[in-house]
Amino acid sequence: MLGQTYDGQNCSAARALEVIGERWSLLIMRDVLFKGITRFADLQRSQGVARSVLTARLDRFVAEGLLERRPAGDSKYQEYVPTAKGLALRPVIIALMQWGDRWVASAGPPIVFRHADCGGELEQRLACQRCGEDVAFDAVSPEAGPGATLAAG
Amino acid sequence: MLGQTYDGQNCSAARALEVIGERWSLLIMRDVLFKGITRFADLQRSQGVARSVLTARLDRFVAEGLLERRPAGDSKYQEYVPTAKGLALRPVIIALMQWGDRWVASAGPPIVFRHADCGGELEQRLACQRCGEDVAFDAVSPEAGPGATLAAG
Repeated sequence: MLGQTYDGQNCSAARALEVIGERWSLLIMRDVLFKGITRFADLQRSQGVARSVLTARLDRFVAEGLLERRPAGDSKYQEYVPTAKGLALRPVIIALMQWGDRWVASAGPPIVFRHADCGGELEQRLACQRCGEDVAFDAVSPEAGPGATLAAG
Repeated sequence: MLGQTYDGQNCSAARALEVIGERWSLLIMRDVLFKGITRFADLQRSQGVARSVLTARLDRFVAEGLLERRPAGDSKYQEYVPTAKGLALRPVIIALMQWGDRWVASAGPPIVFRHADCGGELEQRLACQRCGEDVAFDAVSPEAGPGATLAAG
């Protein structure tokens, strides 16, 4: 399991990858969060992934609290609805897509995110919670936080 | 190969994962970008990963243009230096760490990113390039971009 192999790392990126780092995981969450696809059959059609893989990923997301499984209206089908923890992955997926747009999408971005109010294109920025300024990524100082006292591997 | 399996997906997140989605990839880039670790032996010590895996990942990053391999000063060692394409992964890794801090770091964040100028904590925001406003993640409209005309799988 992926989780086992990152266990020695006391880092929130490593812990995040334990949950969403398996193959297809982020692309499934992308479909749920940005395409509004919530049913198993629709997710399988969109992803073109084996049923067994999709089942395993969705079960894991439910167990980890990223998605809730519930009946879809009065049909016999179930749907997968994102929780707050699942919705909070949107910045991760947008950051990943924007890097891909800039560096590996030779034909231009397949999808553009726009501000619903004015139609402008969106960008991610880093801001300081104290002074409110936009911060360049090379003006960042990493330092030990409250969770750093755990033994690291 | 991971690249093969995502080939049918015309999406910049999928293309990004072809390059950086393999196990350990993002954690190696985290060490290079945020800890300033650039030598093979130091990366291996930090990651606790098999030499063969680290070699394969670093070779891939060099081939993909995320890192440059060059002599470390006048020593016999080589170091791996991030390119602009590699540096551009910082927002992805910060987004991943912040999700992990909030949702899977029970003891609090092991690392806190601070604004070098004022010491404030940092947060990622979504901003509109047209009107300049901060945009909530649920006020985002995805739409087809110039690269959407490629056949999707």
